[in-house]
Amino acid sequence: MEVKVSMSYLDDEKYSVKNISGNELVVDMYARDKKKNLSPMELLLSAVTTCAAVEVVSMIKKRRRDFKDLKAESSGVRAGSHPMYYKEIHVKYIIYSKDLQEKEADRFINLALSKYCSVGSSIRKDTQIEHSFEIVR
Amino acid sequence: MEVKVSMSYLDDEKYSVKNISGNELVVDMYARDKKKNLSPMELLLSAVTTCAAVEVVSMIKKRRRDFKDLKAESSGVRAGSHPMYYKEIHVKYIIYSKDLQEKEADRFINLALSKYCSVGSSIRKDTQIEHSFEIVR
Repeated sequence: MEVKVSMSYLDDEKYSVKNISGNELVVDMYARDKKKNLSPMELLLSAVTTCAAVEVVSMIKKRRRDFKDLKAESSGVRAGSHPMYYKEIHVKYIIYSKDLQEKEADRFINLALSKYCSVGSSIRKDTQIEHSFEIVR
Repeated sequence: MEVKVSMSYLDDEKYSVKNISGNELVVDMYARDKKKNLSPMELLLSAVTTCAAVEVVSMIKKRRRDFKDLKAESSGVRAGSHPMYYKEIHVKYIIYSKDLQEKEADRFINLALSKYCSVGSSIRKDTQIEHSFEIVR
C-alpha cells in the first residue's frame, strides 16, 4: 500500500502538493494575518481528526444508531524547543445523535484514534493522544 | 505553543477543517476517480514534505547558495493490516541551484527532516524516514 505526493515550491513559505489523482493542496507558513492556507502542523492535526472521524461515523452507522452530524475541536501542544513535535493532542468530537450511548461514543472514538485511524497510529508513541466528546440529542 | 483546528462533517467520507485564521481545508476519502481532495494519509505525507522543504530552502539561502526552485516526490509505505501506519517514508528533493554542493544538500535535508521539521519529529520512531536528492544546475 503506497501513498505518493509531489510538491512544488511557490515561494519560501508557500508550497503546492498534488496526489496521484491530481488533487491539489496549498500549504503556507505565513503569519496569521497573511495566512491563506493551513500550515504543516495544522495539516497533521487535521489528518488525525478527519481520519478518526470517518471511522467514528462508520461505527455509529454500523451499530444502526441515529446520526445527524459530527463536529470536532482539536488542539495540539508542541514542545518548547526543537524538535517541536506534538507532546499532546486532544480531539473533542461533538456527535449529533438521538440514541447513541455515552459508552458507545467513548469506545468508538477510542478505537478510531488508537486502532483504525492510520494517521493516529503513525504518530510517535510518547505523544499523548486524548479525546473527549459531547452528544447532542 | 498550541495549534487548533475545528472540523465539520460534509458527508461520510468528506470533511472540512478550519484553522484559527479561518483558512479552510477539505479532506475526502473517495476512490481515486471521484476524488477532489487529499486524504488524511496524503495530508500527513504532504505535511512532512512541505515542513522540511521550508527548512531546506532557509538553510540554502542562509548559506548564500544560489536557489532557483525546489520540487519533491514523496512516497509512504503503509503496514498491510490495522493499524496501517507508515512503515516507511521516502522524500526526494530536486533542488535547482548553480552552486549548492552535494554534501550540503544532504546535510540540510537530513537536518530538516530529523530535527527542524516538527512534523517529521512527530512521527513514530520506527517509521523509517529516508531521503534522497538531485541537484539540477
